[in-house]
Amino acid sequence: MKHLFKGGTLVTGSGTFRADILTDGETIAAVGQDLPPHGAAVTDVTGKLLFPGFIDAHTHFDLDVCNTTTADDFASGTKSALRGGTTTVIDFACPNKGESLSYGLKLWHEKADGKSSCDYGFHMTIDDWNESIEAELPAMFDAGISSFKMYMTYPAMMIGDKDMYYALRALRQYGGIAGVHCENAGVIDALIEQHKRDGLTGPGSHPRCRPNALEAEAVAHLLRIAQVADVPVIIVHLSTAEALHEVRAARARGQQVYIETCPHYLLLDDSVYDLPEYSAAARYVCAPPLRKKADQQALWQALADGTIQTVSTDHCSFTLQQKDAGRGDFTKIPGGLPGVQTRGILLYSAGVAEGRITPETMCRVLSENPAKLYGMFGRKGVLAPGADADIVVIDPAAEGVITAADQISSAGYTPFEGIKTHGRITQVYLRGQLAVDNGEVLAERTGTYIPRGVRQM
Amino acid sequence: MKHLFKGGTLVTGSGTFRADILTDGETIAAVGQDLPPHGAAVTDVTGKLLFPGFIDAHTHFDLDVCNTTTADDFASGTKSALRGGTTTVIDFACPNKGESLSYGLKLWHEKADGKSSCDYGFHMTIDDWNESIEAELPAMFDAGISSFKMYMTYPAMMIGDKDMYYALRALRQYGGIAGVHCENAGVIDALIEQHKRDGLTGPGSHPRCRPNALEAEAVAHLLRIAQVADVPVIIVHLSTAEALHEVRAARARGQQVYIETCPHYLLLDDSVYDLPEYSAAARYVCAPPLRKKADQQALWQALADGTIQTVSTDHCSFTLQQKDAGRGDFTKIPGGLPGVQTRGILLYSAGVAEGRITPETMCRVLSENPAKLYGMFGRKGVLAPGADADIVVIDPAAEGVITAADQISSAGYTPFEGIKTHGRITQVYLRGQLAVDNGEVLAERTGTYIPRGVRQM
Amino acid sequence: MKHLFKGGTLVTGSGTFRADILTDGETIAAVGQDLPPHGAAVTDVTGKLLFPGFIDAHTHFDLDVCNTTTADDFASGTKSALRGGTTTVIDFACPNKGESLSYGLKLWHEKADGKSSCDYGFHMTIDDWNESIEAELPAMFDAGISSFKMYMTYPAMMIGDKDMYYALRALRQYGGIAGVHCENAGVIDALIEQHKRDGLTGPGSHPRCRPNALEAEAVAHLLRIAQVADVPVIIVHLSTAEALHEVRAARARGQQVYIETCPHYLLLDDSVYDLPEYSAAARYVCAPPLRKKADQQALWQALADGTIQTVSTDHCSFTLQQKDAGRGDFTKIPGGLPGVQTRGILLYSAGVAEGRITPETMCRVLSENPAKLYGMFGRKGVLAPGADADIVVIDPAAEGVITAADQISSAGYTPFEGIKTHGRITQVYLRGQLAVDNGEVLAERTGTYIPRGVRQM
Amino acid sequence: MKHLFKGGTLVTGSGTFRADILTDGETIAAVGQDLPPHGAAVTDVTGKLLFPGFIDAHTHFDLDVCNTTTADDFASGTKSALRGGTTTVIDFACPNKGESLSYGLKLWHEKADGKSSCDYGFHMTIDDWNESIEAELPAMFDAGISSFKMYMTYPAMMIGDKDMYYALRALRQYGGIAGVHCENAGVIDALIEQHKRDGLTGPGSHPRCRPNALEAEAVAHLLRIAQVADVPVIIVHLSTAEALHEVRAARARGQQVYIETCPHYLLLDDSVYDLPEYSAAARYVCAPPLRKKADQQALWQALADGTIQTVSTDHCSFTLQQKDAGRGDFTKIPGGLPGVQTRGILLYSAGVAEGRITPETMCRVLSENPAKLYGMFGRKGVLAPGADADIVVIDPAAEGVITAADQISSAGYTPFEGIKTHGRITQVYLRGQLAVDNGEVLAERTGTYIPRGVRQM
Repeated sequence: MKHLFKGGTLVTGSGTFRADILTDGETIAAVGQDLPPHGAAVTDVTGKLLFPGFIDAHTHFDLDVCNTTTADDFASGTKSALRGGTTTVIDFACPNKGESLSYGLKLWHEKADGKSSCDYGFHMTIDDWNESIEAELPAMFDAGISSFKMYMTYPAMMIGDKDMYYALRALRQYGGIAGVHCENAGVIDALIEQHKRDGLTGPGSHPRCRPNALEAEAVAHLLRIAQVADVPVIIVHLSTAEALHEVRAARARGQQVYIETCPHYLLLDDSVYDLPEYSAAARYVCAPPLRKKADQQALWQALADGTIQTVSTDHCSFTLQQKDAGRGDFTKIPGGLPGVQTRGILLYSAGVAEGRITPETMCRVLSENPAKLYGMFGRKGVLAPGADADIVVIDPAAEGVITAADQISSAGYTPFEGIKTHGRITQVYLRGQLAVDNGEVLAERTGTYIPRGVRQM
Repeated sequence: MKHLFKGGTLVTGSGTFRADILTDGETIAAVGQDLPPHGAAVTDVTGKLLFPGFIDAHTHFDLDVCNTTTADDFASGTKSALRGGTTTVIDFACPNKGESLSYGLKLWHEKADGKSSCDYGFHMTIDDWNESIEAELPAMFDAGISSFKMYMTYPAMMIGDKDMYYALRALRQYGGIAGVHCENAGVIDALIEQHKRDGLTGPGSHPRCRPNALEAEAVAHLLRIAQVADVPVIIVHLSTAEALHEVRAARARGQQVYIETCPHYLLLDDSVYDLPEYSAAARYVCAPPLRKKADQQALWQALADGTIQTVSTDHCSFTLQQKDAGRGDFTKIPGGLPGVQTRGILLYSAGVAEGRITPETMCRVLSENPAKLYGMFGRKGVLAPGADADIVVIDPAAEGVITAADQISSAGYTPFEGIKTHGRITQVYLRGQLAVDNGEVLAERTGTYIPRGVRQM
Repeated sequence: MKHLFKGGTLVTGSGTFRADILTDGETIAAVGQDLPPHGAAVTDVTGKLLFPGFIDAHTHFDLDVCNTTTADDFASGTKSALRGGTTTVIDFACPNKGESLSYGLKLWHEKADGKSSCDYGFHMTIDDWNESIEAELPAMFDAGISSFKMYMTYPAMMIGDKDMYYALRALRQYGGIAGVHCENAGVIDALIEQHKRDGLTGPGSHPRCRPNALEAEAVAHLLRIAQVADVPVIIVHLSTAEALHEVRAARARGQQVYIETCPHYLLLDDSVYDLPEYSAAARYVCAPPLRKKADQQALWQALADGTIQTVSTDHCSFTLQQKDAGRGDFTKIPGGLPGVQTRGILLYSAGVAEGRITPETMCRVLSENPAKLYGMFGRKGVLAPGADADIVVIDPAAEGVITAADQISSAGYTPFEGIKTHGRITQVYLRGQLAVDNGEVLAERTGTYIPRGVRQM
Repeated sequence: MKHLFKGGTLVTGSGTFRADILTDGETIAAVGQDLPPHGAAVTDVTGKLLFPGFIDAHTHFDLDVCNTTTADDFASGTKSALRGGTTTVIDFACPNKGESLSYGLKLWHEKADGKSSCDYGFHMTIDDWNESIEAELPAMFDAGISSFKMYMTYPAMMIGDKDMYYALRALRQYGGIAGVHCENAGVIDALIEQHKRDGLTGPGSHPRCRPNALEAEAVAHLLRIAQVADVPVIIVHLSTAEALHEVRAARARGQQVYIETCPHYLLLDDSVYDLPEYSAAARYVCAPPLRKKADQQALWQALADGTIQTVSTDHCSFTLQQKDAGRGDFTKIPGGLPGVQTRGILLYSAGVAEGRITPETMCRVLSENPAKLYGMFGRKGVLAPGADADIVVIDPAAEGVITAADQISSAGYTPFEGIKTHGRITQVYLRGQLAVDNGEVLAERTGTYIPRGVRQM
């Protein structure tokens, strides 16, 4: 079945063009000027912007963490994603310490297969290192897993410098890459103990126990390990101006470093943690925490000038009831924010429409770069012949507002409540099929697993 | 007339795709998978790379300078360019002090119109600043001139800080941008006098009078003026690691800066100036001079990581006879190198084939970025529907060697003599027409003037 | 005649000691524990701090500038200095363009000799460069002039890059050093014209026409010239965080750079220029202008950590009547502040007493470093045997307040009006003689010319 | 008993003066010009330089480590120190994990008391952190211990980030300061395992397993912890240009950091580890390892410009027989070099005589700064009234050569063998007593314990 999108403006990382798109089945057949319909169904997208389907390379669905399970599983999570223009997510398969990678992968397939409304892949979390895990690596690459996650914080998941080095070297053999959560664990732990001893147990202590300097420390730390290991590396959910500075320094000495940030670091700040009502503050608890306005500004500049490669959501949702677990002890607040649905429109509105970034930059950080960095470019991340016909249609003239009521996520709230947006996502196509139309999800559970190859940037 | 290129690999700044290209007349009609011929002439480009026609944003043809005229006029210069895959040049219209911009523009049209084998545009040189020049600006933009050149060195052309500031502010009103030759004039002058007093009059003194620190000074200097003027700015033919450092510092404080470098700074070093034979050394004299191997390495890294936006040639050719003018006084050696023909294959061979940069980066620095920076993207710089069908076909499996005999330039020599290349440019199409086939230029003097708009990046 | 100071605490750049000082005639004979009087007059200075007489290496007395003459000549200026603990000033001999250095020196001796109440030396201003000036250099060094001043701003005095380079190289031969006023002239000029065109002619335009970036530009610029010339250099009256950054960068690449700042940059900020009353604002006009609070903080930190070497006053005083010349045109406000009397107590109070710097740092920046940098250490700048018995006695327990009424300067006002001080200067000895006692100047016009040698640091 | 040193040149951190010194008993009574003998014994030191007795703040005597005991105990170590002009050492009391600090202190007193030929103090090593150790801190300060050592490497001694933070905060309460061995433990461990697996077990692997980047990592890491803890900190035995860069960055953001380096990092390089004979290479094994010539140059520059505060020896001596333990396994080579005797003359010769540093800088880094940093300035570190009469007499006109035969150390070799020196230490006075005369140690075991207070810089 063929489909012709006529009169739209295509956005790529390289440029923006008036052109028609002809899709044939699941993929794009041609991009051209005044393409003849030749029997294709024709959709008029005059005045609309067409982006390649967005990729969210950082989600946590159906994750057992903090003695609870995230509010969103793959059913609600991927439906929410799709609704917001995200046609592919990469979730983190998280075997526990002692479990095999293949077990983790199997488990995540069970969580996702048949329930996902958008396409999906998995990163594999390495929270332990030994010969048997190392021996599993080839099977992981064979299974389409080319990216791995490591933690420099959280005792249950963190991996020491020695194992970090070994893991980075082992990944290097296969062309794999690691994304690392960079915060200094030990000092955070000490600060938490201090705050608790001093009776400062509310959400306001959360950011004070995770100061900017401790993200910068971990980033610089990781980058030196990567320098010795001679490997590129990804800083996930980077949140501070200080950490940007450390990455720039490493690049100036010749290292390859990729940076991911998230919408909440671009748009929100840590003043919310001091809101008087527990629940108003606790809903924003995530790690790294929200930062200062000066950090926001530095991140927007870094997006615009190419210092940052990707914007993901780190969607890890809990209901306000779940957040209640931390009353009287902020360290028990399940950490994470919902956001998988709102990323695209927020980037468009606060970024493109308000002039902070170009449409091309938006395309790069939401589609093109994650596709390349995570080894699925060509199929995903681009509106070009041969690519999957994942298409997001944005009406730049429409306006909207972010509300909890409009969210598919089971979190029950959105940290971006009430933000007015310029532009609206009017349609989303997944592999040629109209999947979202005017806010309604038409096709559920049709997502498929995307095996990925090695980094293409 | 339609033309179908089947089976090739398209290179864009965003990615590389297997796709067919259908051209219709002068432009690209469609890009697609297995496009049907429908009566188009079909060329099999299986196994070939197709780049958008290269843009050389820095040439000096038919320029009276150093009491002589460059060896190449627009006839030989643009033919040489085309032969090397460059389908558009932007030459510098250079009115003398006291002449109007419109006079300079008229003069350059006389030099170029009807003689150019590739398409062309002009930058306008501002070597003076007053009310009447300022009043000419709107006419320049109307005439398709959106970029301007200023000099911080050369008494005949340089412009002081005050006029530089005024000019930058005036350009800002219209969205124009300036490219600046950054070397400290005064200290160079003093060093030259010292060297002459000491009897050091050979070509070996040339680089010693223009040390790296003096490029860095001028770059930092310009960037502070641009900071106060609140304008983006282009550093042309940047040649040193120190200057890269200054640009990175300005970007980190939030400034927009674009960098151009040239193949000779990437591939040659200043040891040649100490060759014993005058002519062997003098042929390499240009400003800034060739630098050290460490600078080369820094420039390649900066190309790869996106620090540098464009690679142009600064083609400004003189015969060895002309270079003889400087025997006994190195400051009388006409400064400049031929290179308009060799840029593409050198970047491909030393860059892509040897793994220093990706094809995408090559496409960005030779085609996409100059098109955007100089306001003609969409028409030029990209293989996309609606764009001019300027296509460079590279056979990555072929090999070659750079020789003077193979150069169309009237310089009579090439600074890259004897360099073996991986890959060969087998065909060049200019607006849909086969213009170069297997080294032979088939279509001469068909180039047209390209009026340009404002910066698109 | 011998004098024994018993029971005091001596401050040196290296440390603070309880010790007696025995002076014999004009010099210090011994420093010791419980020195026996042996017929010396004994002064009990128990509980007091004894500093080496302060050196003010930046004054402008009896200077014709801005179509007027500074309010203070050497009589009032040096008396004011002495009153504030400054036992030596180095004033700037300023021949006009076209006048010889020897003429300038002769003129300054006429202004100072026989009228000065503290000791004095001269820097020589170089505002022009030619063979005859170069030929005068040996005579200058013979006459005890080893430091020179150059301007990068002010058309009447500035010197271009070429002459700057030549002058620095010529000074290098003799071990001389230059202090340079670093602000970008051309852009300031343009900004002034803009402000005037826009009718912004009040004092509030003064700082806006001299933004921080333009000091940073000139500092970076000078440092690159100095790098090529391979000479150390002094940045006089440095005022911005940005300029500190440029100096740190030059030092990290191996250059020797010395920094001077002034009390008004440490203690005042540019909000005063927007005071509604002309006279309230105009009195603060000086160049560089007062800066932001963030700059103050950066300067204090740089003092404490040794980044800054000296604190001088740049005393260049005009009465409020003289300042009236700029009503309706801020560029006609004679630029400069009185301050020669208040420096010592302000540094002690805001610096030492409030914990920003140690007494040793105060001693270094007011006495030891200027003595070394300007080639008179051993005789001046230290409380050690053989040194001139220039002694400042501070009572740390006393308190005071800065008032215009208390100033000897003819300016008639003080920019530090009303500042309460911790500590008081109770006595000042000049070459063994009690010259100031409890605020009263006892010995006038006994100052002597101090010929200086080359830099000792 | 009084002693008058006539005609010498005194060196202080602030300046160099011709002056006599009168000592009375153990202390300096007066410093003056032509002091009268009044019955004192007179020594003519005309033409000699007199330095305050050198302080070596980093020695390891009588230390059980690497399954052996250092070659030097306090008897041979302090005698060797004294012979080289060092009148005070600060050794590291090293309780094992689980032992109390007071036990460690008692043990070190037993090792040192009655056996030391120069004066001595102790730093206390913190290789564990818990409430009982924290509770011991006041007693440590009472006992004259104000400085502490922590390790970021060596499993037996290293302390994690959390405990590091706690310890730094606890020391902060008392004004104590920590010196930290900065190398990344985990990656070194991995590199060692790799090298062993690859059969690379000789001394040549030693530096390859401890690359510069891993010192830089640990320094940056520590400095971020110190930033959050809001404390100053000392980097001991800093050895690389990269680590200097990290310290400069921390200072520029306002942190107080002190740097110690050692003569072997200034004078030797890592080429020795590749000497073919095991014993020739193994003798140089220490941690951090010797570095590159570029690092040496960076360290000398940093000494000269004040970036580095102290030069200590890290004397930790083993005989070549002991070094034999690492044949076949470089990790079993006892790590450490002898050097306590040679530091002063090496700094004088390679530093002052060869023009790299001034005598004042030598005085600061060997005497004044360690005295201040470790809280004994006034008594030690300076030639001023009231200070201990610890005096080193250097004859700048004499020459010498470093030989093993001339060393008192029991190591049996010197890493500086054969280096010719300009200048000789002709006499050393300890608290007024002639202790070394022309190379002969006249007074043994007269050293006394020096309790220290808090940091004075």
